[in-house]
Amino acid sequence: MMVADMETMGLAIRRLSIRGAPAIGIAAAYGVVLGVRAEADGSRTRFESALRGAIGLLARSRPTAVNLFWALRRMSERAIDLLDAGKTPRKVVALLLKEAQTIHREDEAQCEAIGRHGERLLRDGMAVLTHCNAGALATGGIGTALAPIYAAARAGKNVRVFADETRPLLQGARLTAWELAEAGIDVTLICDGAAARVMGEGKVGCAIVGADRIASNGDTANKIGTYGVALAARSHGIPFYVAAPANTFDLSLKSGQEIPIEERDPGEVCSSSGRSAFARKLKVYNPAFDVTPARLISAFITERGIVRPPFAKNIARVLGKNR
Amino acid sequence: MMVADMETMGLAIRRLSIRGAPAIGIAAAYGVVLGVRAEADGSRTRFESALRGAIGLLARSRPTAVNLFWALRRMSERAIDLLDAGKTPRKVVALLLKEAQTIHREDEAQCEAIGRHGERLLRDGMAVLTHCNAGALATGGIGTALAPIYAAARAGKNVRVFADETRPLLQGARLTAWELAEAGIDVTLICDGAAARVMGEGKVGCAIVGADRIASNGDTANKIGTYGVALAARSHGIPFYVAAPANTFDLSLKSGQEIPIEERDPGEVCSSSGRSAFARKLKVYNPAFDVTPARLISAFITERGIVRPPFAKNIARVLGKNR
Repeated sequence: MMVADMETMGLAIRRLSIRGAPAIGIAAAYGVVLGVRAEADGSRTRFESALRGAIGLLARSRPTAVNLFWALRRMSERAIDLLDAGKTPRKVVALLLKEAQTIHREDEAQCEAIGRHGERLLRDGMAVLTHCNAGALATGGIGTALAPIYAAARAGKNVRVFADETRPLLQGARLTAWELAEAGIDVTLICDGAAARVMGEGKVGCAIVGADRIASNGDTANKIGTYGVALAARSHGIPFYVAAPANTFDLSLKSGQEIPIEERDPGEVCSSSGRSAFARKLKVYNPAFDVTPARLISAFITERGIVRPPFAKNIARVLGKNR
Repeated sequence: MMVADMETMGLAIRRLSIRGAPAIGIAAAYGVVLGVRAEADGSRTRFESALRGAIGLLARSRPTAVNLFWALRRMSERAIDLLDAGKTPRKVVALLLKEAQTIHREDEAQCEAIGRHGERLLRDGMAVLTHCNAGALATGGIGTALAPIYAAARAGKNVRVFADETRPLLQGARLTAWELAEAGIDVTLICDGAAARVMGEGKVGCAIVGADRIASNGDTANKIGTYGVALAARSHGIPFYVAAPANTFDLSLKSGQEIPIEERDPGEVCSSSGRSAFARKLKVYNPAFDVTPARLISAFITERGIVRPPFAKNIARVLGKNR
C-alpha cells in the first residue's frame, strides 16, 4: 500500500493496513509530516491549522493504542517548539520528518532491547504461547512480544511458539505464524479456544503478548482474547508476560477501566459465517480489545528492563522518568 | 443429506454432517439398522457378522462422544437378546428399527426434561453464554444446553444469549445463532476470545454448555474452548452449567484424563487463513475437544434433575441406577 497523504494514512490505520501499537505510533508520526508538508511555504497560522487538522484526523483513526496519541503529542510539541524558536514552516517540515524517522529508529532500538531483556526469561526448549501479532509486522523492529523469541533464537536457544489464530481478523494465523515461519522458528497454529487445553497438556512454558495501552497500575489493554489467555495461564501456573515499550504505558490512567475499548464492525466476525442473508442480519458484539488485570501479569518486558510486581510502584519507578 | 446406507451414516458422523453427542447416538442407532437390514433373510451367522461390521464401522467414526458407544451397545445387546429369544433376523431388523426410534423419542423427552429442570436456573432478563451448539440441531429434541433457554422463553421469561462463534468450525455462528434467531430468541454472536471480556462487563448471568462425555468425577469433555469459558466463568463468579442426558455420563471412567480426545484435520483451522501455499504447509494443532475439570462446574442439568457437588457421590446417586 502506497501512502502519499495524511487521509490515506488515517485510513490505513483505521482499516488495519497498518496495525500493532508501535507501528501505529510510527505511522501517525509520518502521517503528521504528510499532513503539514503542503503548508511548507504557508504562514505560521496556516501551518498550525494544518498541524491541528492532521493531528485531529489521525487521532480519530483508532482509540485504544496509546502509542498513537503519544506520537501525535510528540510531533505536535516538536512542531510548536520549532515554530516558537523561529524556524520557518519549510524547516519545520524537514525537522518533523527527521523526528518521525527518529521515532521509527527508536522503536527499532526499543524492540532490540525488549528482545535482550526478554530473552533471559526463555529457557532452551521452551514453548511460548502468544496471541495476535506483536512481531516485526507490528513494530519498526523485531517486535515486542516476539522480540524475546527472535533474540532467543539468535542466541542459539531452541524456542517453539504456539500462535493463537486470534479471531476475528486472524492476525495470529496470517501474521505471527507467517513471520515466525519465515524466520525459521518452529511455530504451531491453534484456535483461540485451544489455548487453555494446550496449557493443560503441559506444552507451554510461558505466554508473551504485546499491549495497546497499559495503565499506571499495570492493567493492560491488548487484542480481544488476551484476557482469556491470561486467566488460563494463571490457572496453570504459567508465567504471563506483557512486552511493550515505555510509550505504551499511559501513566495518566489509574486503571484499565479508564482505557477506551474500540468496538469494530460486526462484519469482521460474521463474514466468515458466510454471506447469507442470515449472517447479514445477525447481531454481533465485536470489542477489538480486552483488559487483562494487573494481578494476572507476571512481569512487563520493556526496553528499560523487566518490571515485576508491585506494579503501581515499579512502573512509576522504571518508566516514570524521562518521559 | 440422504443417508441410505451404513457407510454413508458413518461418513455423515465423521464429517460432522450429523454432530452433537445426542444426535450422534441417535444416528448411530439408525446406522445399525441400515447395516443389518440387507441380512434380514440371511442366517443368524451372517446377520451377526453384519451387526459386528456395522458396529465396528460406526464406532470408528468419532472417538469422544460417549453417546455413540452407548447407542451402539444398546442396539447390539438388543439384537443379541432378540436372536437368543429365537426371533428371525427379519423380525430383529424390524424391532431394531423400533429400538432406534425409541432412542430417538427418549432423547426428545430427555431434552424436554433438561429444559424443565434447567429453566429454574434462569431468571427473567438473564443472559446466558453458550459455546458450540447443543441445541435442536445437536439432538432429537430442543437440545441440551439450549433446552433451558427454550423452556424459559416458553415460560415467558426474557432470556438473552451470547453465542461463542466456536472455532474452527463455527458451530456457534452457523448453528446456535441461527436456531435461536429462528426461534425468536435474542442472540448475540461473539468471538470465542471475547467471552472473558463479555463476562467482565457484567453482561452474563450464567454459562450453559453441552457435553460429549462426562467422567464419574464430573470432568467433562466438550467442544474445544469450553475449558476456557469455564475458567473465565469461575474467575467472574458466574455459574457454569453442563447440560447433558444420563447417557453422556461414562461411569467407567474415573476422571477426564481417561477421555479420548479427537484430533481433527489441520485444514479445519487454516482454511480460513486462505488457501495459500503458506497456509497449506502451516503446522496446526487441532484438538476437537477439551476437558473441563469438575471443580469449575457449578452443576449438571440432566433429565433426572440438577446434580450439584460433590459430584463423585451425587453423579453415582442420581445417574448410577437404571443404566
